[in-house]
Amino acid sequence: MRLSRLFSPRIVAHAHCDLPCGVYDPAQARIEAESVKAIAEKYQANEDPEFRTRAILIKEQRAELVKHHLWVLWTDYFKPPHFEKYPQLHALFNEATKLAGAAGAKGKVDVKVAEDLLGKIDEIAKIFWETKQA
Amino acid sequence: MRLSRLFSPRIVAHAHCDLPCGVYDPAQARIEAESVKAIAEKYQANEDPEFRTRAILIKEQRAELVKHHLWVLWTDYFKPPHFEKYPQLHALFNEATKLAGAAGAKGKVDVKVAEDLLGKIDEIAKIFWETKQA
Amino acid sequence: MRLSRLFSPRIVAHAHCDLPCGVYDPAQARIEAESVKAIAEKYQANEDPEFRTRAILIKEQRAELVKHHLWVLWTDYFKPPHFEKYPQLHALFNEATKLAGAAGAKGKVDVKVAEDLLGKIDEIAKIFWETKQA
Amino acid sequence: MRLSRLFSPRIVAHAHCDLPCGVYDPAQARIEAESVKAIAEKYQANEDPEFRTRAILIKEQRAELVKHHLWVLWTDYFKPPHFEKYPQLHALFNEATKLAGAAGAKGKVDVKVAEDLLGKIDEIAKIFWETKQA
Amino acid sequence: MRLSRLFSPRIVAHAHCDLPCGVYDPAQARIEAESVKAIAEKYQANEDPEFRTRAILIKEQRAELVKHHLWVLWTDYFKPPHFEKYPQLHALFNEATKLAGAAGAKGKVDVKVAEDLLGKIDEIAKIFWETKQA
Amino acid sequence: MRLSRLFSPRIVAHAHCDLPCGVYDPAQARIEAESVKAIAEKYQANEDPEFRTRAILIKEQRAELVKHHLWVLWTDYFKPPHFEKYPQLHALFNEATKLAGAAGAKGKVDVKVAEDLLGKIDEIAKIFWETKQA
Repeated sequence: MRLSRLFSPRIVAHAHCDLPCGVYDPAQARIEAESVKAIAEKYQANEDPEFRTRAILIKEQRAELVKHHLWVLWTDYFKPPHFEKYPQLHALFNEATKLAGAAGAKGKVDVKVAEDLLGKIDEIAKIFWETKQA
Repeated sequence: MRLSRLFSPRIVAHAHCDLPCGVYDPAQARIEAESVKAIAEKYQANEDPEFRTRAILIKEQRAELVKHHLWVLWTDYFKPPHFEKYPQLHALFNEATKLAGAAGAKGKVDVKVAEDLLGKIDEIAKIFWETKQA
Repeated sequence: MRLSRLFSPRIVAHAHCDLPCGVYDPAQARIEAESVKAIAEKYQANEDPEFRTRAILIKEQRAELVKHHLWVLWTDYFKPPHFEKYPQLHALFNEATKLAGAAGAKGKVDVKVAEDLLGKIDEIAKIFWETKQA
Repeated sequence: MRLSRLFSPRIVAHAHCDLPCGVYDPAQARIEAESVKAIAEKYQANEDPEFRTRAILIKEQRAELVKHHLWVLWTDYFKPPHFEKYPQLHALFNEATKLAGAAGAKGKVDVKVAEDLLGKIDEIAKIFWETKQA
Repeated sequence: MRLSRLFSPRIVAHAHCDLPCGVYDPAQARIEAESVKAIAEKYQANEDPEFRTRAILIKEQRAELVKHHLWVLWTDYFKPPHFEKYPQLHALFNEATKLAGAAGAKGKVDVKVAEDLLGKIDEIAKIFWETKQA
Repeated sequence: MRLSRLFSPRIVAHAHCDLPCGVYDPAQARIEAESVKAIAEKYQANEDPEFRTRAILIKEQRAELVKHHLWVLWTDYFKPPHFEKYPQLHALFNEATKLAGAAGAKGKVDVKVAEDLLGKIDEIAKIFWETKQA
């Protein structure tokens, strides 16, 4: 991938609401998880106690958003035929949301944990886009 | 663009928080605006009063999120040199957030208004990605 | 059960937070689902359009809380050994949260749907209390 | 009370919304206060500064929920005849919400304060259930 | 009062938080109640069903804020000596918050109800400012 | 100004919602900024780590409210003719909201920063009230 690609506009985006509007996108969870990772990096590089308190409280909110966006995909987008075709999907979502919670990104200020979380979200995104193409 | 491209994973995503984590992406505003548009389409196609009430209240929330994500970009991402280089940027953000509000996407259930809003967001996204490449 | 029992204090209660505090209780989801049911009953008995608009918007919020409390139990309380012992648990939570969403309690103003939701929550609660005794 | 009773399902629950749905239950306040107490216990047992920051911020949210649920009961459930019959009720609610605030459970990380708060909530619950039986 | 006075800056303002910061002002409740009144006026003058749905949902939020700001004053600002000096204060707050709820400004779209609510808030404000001068 | 004036009731107040109700008042932003300042003062005077953590998290919320109330004025109240008449208005709002954010009141616990923020809000309020008189 050329570097310029990394910085090109990404103007096709997909969303969710529970009307449902029918627009979903794993990017919403990934965006917040990227933020969790960046916060962990900045936290490790900055020992100022005021900064660190802010980092922890903001990370808590971002990790909660990761959980929320993943729960929405799991309940609102994926349907029984998807769970039949991808029998690992329930566990994958359960592990990903646990990784965003107290035992993972909320409870730790750890870049590696945030990367694991991003990895789980990418596994989910891969399946998501396969089902969209089906 | 090949059709498959439309449904391929979009796993590079960017976020925001006010630590700041330094991760921003106009996709967050666009995602909610896509939802606003889809809601308007579904509303026009469905005369059930219960559905329409739900559509209006959910659209209200989504349009508020559009405003919020745009405000965040305007205040937190863009800096004085950007406003110097792009003198139209203040007005562009002001118009875009107005288009998401009472005089636009909140006050009307109109697919065309949602498309105008998406157009404004794309103008902002174009400038955003130019500044990232700079 | 004697009538007085119905109205006796229920002062042993359990909660959740993602510290985690370790305190969980399916009652939180059930409380909101009871509210969803009562709203549906009042809606059917009252044709005033202002009342009905309020009923729909409040039901939307209550149903969202049902989803949230169930998601919290599924991600934060239940652990891999539980899912092994109760292989139906993933699907049960997925169905229950779907029943609280657009295809169920959010999308319909229907006492029967609210009762089905309460039934699902009771199934979850039964398993929850079994695991607490284990 | 037999131990098994402690862990039995508590599937009769009561909620509130301001339609009003007519469903109220002091358990909602108690649940959050139990969480406040558990957080204080965990805080005292764990000197890790990251954990302690998270504990304080989560306790703040839980204590706010205690206040909210109590305010709802005081304004929405209790009516003038109740205040006539229980002349101490205004002060009781005022003291309980103060105990959940800055001078109590918010401002201190103290198991004893959380227990005092639980005691106040139980006093309110006792009156609540008497009025339901009346 | 001269007309110009009505439009002069009101830059001395007071706030609240539960640190506590010690800054309180009944204006916060009044501001939202003014909004409730303006919404009721606009509702009565506009029969468009989409507008009316939006008006009801926004009024619901504004009335909830009235309740919240009043609860904060009652619990966080006023202390036992105030309640001794102003024995009507508990009932006044209880009536004012009820007037903002289902039996008042939430349940009705009625300019007169909003004015009654404003009257109650002004009674509270009068006492508030007396205690500040004391 | 006589001292008594400082403590007199301020019962004429103005609000906002996006119906729009047409009621706006810069006091809402100022109220939260006053709180930010008071929190910074109390923080500097109290070295207790639990207090300081609470101060930082509450300041974060209050500063976010400052940003929100200013954004609302900028998008919802001010119209193109205002921006023509006051060409500095865009930059003024941008600077004020930046001052409430990470580079200002959120990122620092500094009474001086809060005072600068109050100064910016007062500049905005002055223009606001001029436009109301026009």
